[in-house]
Amino acid sequence: EIAAVLLPGSGGGLQGVQVLMTVGPTREAIDPVRFIGNRSSGKMGYALAAALQQRGAQVTAVAGPTSIAPGPGLAPIAVESALEMEAEVMERVTDCQMFIAAAAVADYRPETSASAKIKKDADSIGLRLVRNPDILARVAALDKPPFTVGFAAETDQVEVHARAKLEAKRLSMIAANQVGSGEGGFESDRNALICLWREGRRELPMMPKPALAAALAALIEERYGAQIAG
Amino acid sequence: EIAAVLLPGSGGGLQGVQVLMTVGPTREAIDPVRFIGNRSSGKMGYALAAALQQRGAQVTAVAGPTSIAPGPGLAPIAVESALEMEAEVMERVTDCQMFIAAAAVADYRPETSASAKIKKDADSIGLRLVRNPDILARVAALDKPPFTVGFAAETDQVEVHARAKLEAKRLSMIAANQVGSGEGGFESDRNALICLWREGRRELPMMPKPALAAALAALIEERYGAQIAG
Repeated sequence: EIAAVLLPGSGGGLQGVQVLMTVGPTREAIDPVRFIGNRSSGKMGYALAAALQQRGAQVTAVAGPTSIAPGPGLAPIAVESALEMEAEVMERVTDCQMFIAAAAVADYRPETSASAKIKKDADSIGLRLVRNPDILARVAALDKPPFTVGFAAETDQVEVHARAKLEAKRLSMIAANQVGSGEGGFESDRNALICLWREGRRELPMMPKPALAAALAALIEERYGAQIAG
Repeated sequence: EIAAVLLPGSGGGLQGVQVLMTVGPTREAIDPVRFIGNRSSGKMGYALAAALQQRGAQVTAVAGPTSIAPGPGLAPIAVESALEMEAEVMERVTDCQMFIAAAAVADYRPETSASAKIKKDADSIGLRLVRNPDILARVAALDKPPFTVGFAAETDQVEVHARAKLEAKRLSMIAANQVGSGEGGFESDRNALICLWREGRRELPMMPKPALAAALAALIEERYGAQIAG
C-alpha cells in the first residue's frame, strides 16, 4: 500500500482512516427564543478536521451552530442540541476507526423547554437543568470502541482534571486547555494544549489555531499508529 | 434648512438626527464557559441602522455578540451582557433624539456567575435567574425621553402583547413579529412586522430584511416627523 511506504511524519499516514468528529457548541433551548450556549467557536474543530484530511483521513463532522465556515472539503451534519448530536454520532460511529469529540457539548439542558416564550413577570425564576448524555463516554464504552480523542476545557488544575477524565472515560487521548484566564481558548485565534494519553504527555505551546491543529493532527496520527501497532 | 425642502418620503428627512440603537443578543454568563443567549442575529438591527443612515441619521450602535458584520459606516460599541449594554446606553442617550431598542436583551441573568467552570457532578442543578434591567423602559421613562422605538418578538397573540408593551412602557412606537413558527424571525433572512403607535398601526408584509428595514426606517421617519410637528 501507498500509505505504508510514507516516512513517519511525512503526512498521509491516516490514508483511508474514517474519522468522525463533533465540532462547535450545542444549544439547549429554554424556549423558542432563549437557550443555554457556550463559547466554543468551532475554529479549533474545523482546523483539526482540515489537518486530518491533509493526512489522508476521511472526516465526517457533526457540528453545532457556529458562525465560521467549515473547510472546503467538509460538509458538516448540522445539529443544535446535545441530544441531536448524540443521535447523529451513534448512527455513524460504528463505521469509523476514530472519534474526536471537539464539540463543547452542553453538560446540562433545561428539564423542560417551553413551546411559547416565557413571560417575564417574576422577579426571579428557577430553571431546573438535567444532565445531557456524555457522547464521548458512550462512544468510548462501546464493545469495540474507535480510537477516541477528547478535549477538556478547564479553568484550574488543568492536567489533574484532564487525566482524571482520560481515565474515567477510558479515552485513547485527551487534549486539555485552560479557559477563562489570559490568552487562548474558545474564541481566541491562538491556543495551547496539554495532550495526555495513558503512558505519556506532550505539551503543544501557544500558537495560532491552524498550526496547533496541524501539530495535534500529527500527534493523533502518531498515537493512533502506536495503538494499531500495539 | 436643506432638510426642510425635501419632499416627504424622499429620504434625508432624518438629516442631523442623533439615533442611539441597541443591536444583537446579549449573553448572560453562567460561568466562564456557559451562558444564556438568544437567537437574535443582529441582521435586522444592522439593516435598520444602514437604512436610517441613508435617511441622514447619525447612528450610534451598542451591540451584543453577533456573527455578522455591521455596515461600513457603523462602528458599534461592543458589549456582552444586559448590564454592560445598559451602562453604555445610559451614558449616551441624553445626547440623542431617538432611541431604537433592536437588541434582544436577555430578560434574566444568572443570580451568580461562577468564576470557575461548574463541575458536572449532579444529575440535575437549579439555576436561579434574576431580572435584568429593562433598558428600553428606563429610557422611555426619562424626564425628556427621546423618540423611543421598541421591538417585540412574540410566539402568540402578537398584536395584543405588543400593544400592551407599547402602552406600559410609554413607547413612541413598537415593531412586533412572530417567532418560533413558520417563516421569519431571528435567524431568517426574511421577516414581517406589525408596527403600532398610540393612534395607529401599519403592517409591513414578509420580505427580505434589508427591504423591511428600509420600510421600517421610512415609517420611523414619518412617525418621528409627526411627533415633532405635533
